[in-house]
Amino acid sequence: MTAQHPPAPTAFGVAEAMSKLAEILPPTPLLPVEIMGQTVWCKAECLQPIGAFKIRGAWHRLTALKRAEREAGVVGVSSGNHAQGVAWAAKRLGIRATIVMPVDAPAIKLDATRALGAEVVLYDRPGGEDRDAVAARLCAASGATLVHAFADPWVIEGQGTIGLELAAQMAGRCDGPPTRIVAPCGGGGLTAGLSLACPDAEIVPVEPEGWDDVRRSLAAGEIVAVASDAPATACDALQTPSTRPINFAVLKGRVRFGLVVTPAEVRAAQRFAFERLHLVVEPGGAAALAAALAGKVALDGRTAIVLSGGNTDAQAFAKAILGP
Amino acid sequence: MTAQHPPAPTAFGVAEAMSKLAEILPPTPLLPVEIMGQTVWCKAECLQPIGAFKIRGAWHRLTALKRAEREAGVVGVSSGNHAQGVAWAAKRLGIRATIVMPVDAPAIKLDATRALGAEVVLYDRPGGEDRDAVAARLCAASGATLVHAFADPWVIEGQGTIGLELAAQMAGRCDGPPTRIVAPCGGGGLTAGLSLACPDAEIVPVEPEGWDDVRRSLAAGEIVAVASDAPATACDALQTPSTRPINFAVLKGRVRFGLVVTPAEVRAAQRFAFERLHLVVEPGGAAALAAALAGKVALDGRTAIVLSGGNTDAQAFAKAILGP
Repeated sequence: MTAQHPPAPTAFGVAEAMSKLAEILPPTPLLPVEIMGQTVWCKAECLQPIGAFKIRGAWHRLTALKRAEREAGVVGVSSGNHAQGVAWAAKRLGIRATIVMPVDAPAIKLDATRALGAEVVLYDRPGGEDRDAVAARLCAASGATLVHAFADPWVIEGQGTIGLELAAQMAGRCDGPPTRIVAPCGGGGLTAGLSLACPDAEIVPVEPEGWDDVRRSLAAGEIVAVASDAPATACDALQTPSTRPINFAVLKGRVRFGLVVTPAEVRAAQRFAFERLHLVVEPGGAAALAAALAGKVALDGRTAIVLSGGNTDAQAFAKAILGP
Repeated sequence: MTAQHPPAPTAFGVAEAMSKLAEILPPTPLLPVEIMGQTVWCKAECLQPIGAFKIRGAWHRLTALKRAEREAGVVGVSSGNHAQGVAWAAKRLGIRATIVMPVDAPAIKLDATRALGAEVVLYDRPGGEDRDAVAARLCAASGATLVHAFADPWVIEGQGTIGLELAAQMAGRCDGPPTRIVAPCGGGGLTAGLSLACPDAEIVPVEPEGWDDVRRSLAAGEIVAVASDAPATACDALQTPSTRPINFAVLKGRVRFGLVVTPAEVRAAQRFAFERLHLVVEPGGAAALAAALAGKVALDGRTAIVLSGGNTDAQAFAKAILGP
């Protein structure tokens, strides 16, 4: 975080991010779908130009850079969606971008990040290499600004614009604003942003089995990291070892509990989105829908579900939709 | 056609349909995508509640029925998307719907039509049974109104609303209205509607190999049916033996030529939509995109491509995206 921003993200910052985003990106559709006899509202962030909501935070962050900072470039750290968000914003603003990505990231995400003109530096996630250390070295060497995937006030505010956008979309179609927003959760950038954007809605973070650090942190009242032997997960976008103080500070006073979904529940949600919504949703992007379909969260006619991304390889997607 | 409507569809009728549709359905997104270095605009009709644009014509037609006609019910004839459009509109309006569908229609379309509360009557398409004769018998027996899938002035006008909607969406994002609209073509309902809606745009119908009756009719200056031994096609939505006078009357003075795409080109388009747009597009729905990707049609920054539907079985879709 730099001195240019207050230490914490704010609701005002979310509104500011919304006005910047509205100039360049139309709202993603809010699609009604029936689950157990109840109409709920799916926010199709997989239809963003980069196939994920991360474009929001990246745009808000990069447009806030001063001229000298722009000239020194940016460094992002990401399994793929934040990578593409930073690369997309950097390309549009003429900023040099370097992205630190795990060597086992989906090929589709590596290729797409490079296609947007970013330089990709790989790190050994399976071998336990510390990606933040790699990024810090790059920033120290070049003077570039680190754009963290979730522990950044601008990024949190940018992701929160989903809440403002869906509330406006529901206004014309429901009898009131969202009562509940169910969202996939990795490090807690999106759910912290939603908490600020929609103060009257219940925010429900959903994490994949074994990677439920936010759920456990909320239960413990302090930040708890995932176990060092956490199982592999298809939800690469949600595979973060722990949330950070800037996120947890927002979440702990605001979010009552988190939910966990199994690999089978995630695949069922991908199949449902394929059949009923005609959308390609990646495993991590389907986590919130998975919780809804599994009956793990209460649903009413003003429940919104974020489908956060759609960047998945054909092989993996085919396997998911052919299930069970 | 009944006496309530002028004998031919009109641009005024398209505008009237648009005002009725805008009350119940938000615009489908218009998604930019780069093809051969050129940004073009994809109209994602696969995101309609029934997964296809046919909801437009069906709504315009059924809302025009008089009370006595509503009470006698409607009969539709369709391989699946028009079926769901009629069933959806009928359910919402409290009208009894019977749909004549081919016994070899995709299971996903048969199931979805029944789930919307319509009665499905199967006919033997592979065996050459005349679906129109089946529908006529049903109408004669019950007094129901036939809602033809494309040879109906209201249906043509309703489908044309896609043109008005995408022109409005492009207004804010391009330097002018569409120069060209490339659209999948079965019987010519959509392309006739687009011709009326966007009089300044070139309309390019795209048909699957062997089912290019509209292309050949345009070339001959008169209606020509497909060969009786036309090959099987995965594009079930475009599998119509011939266009009709009401459609051809609009098309012949307005559309210069039609295009044909191969099965491999259609699958490549489905893969492209999966990877780059995160959309599930059925074979027939991908025909226009297939022509663009194959370099068969000129593209500029004001070219729109209609992705007309997304109702496809998981098995078939998995095969298409795993191709080649």
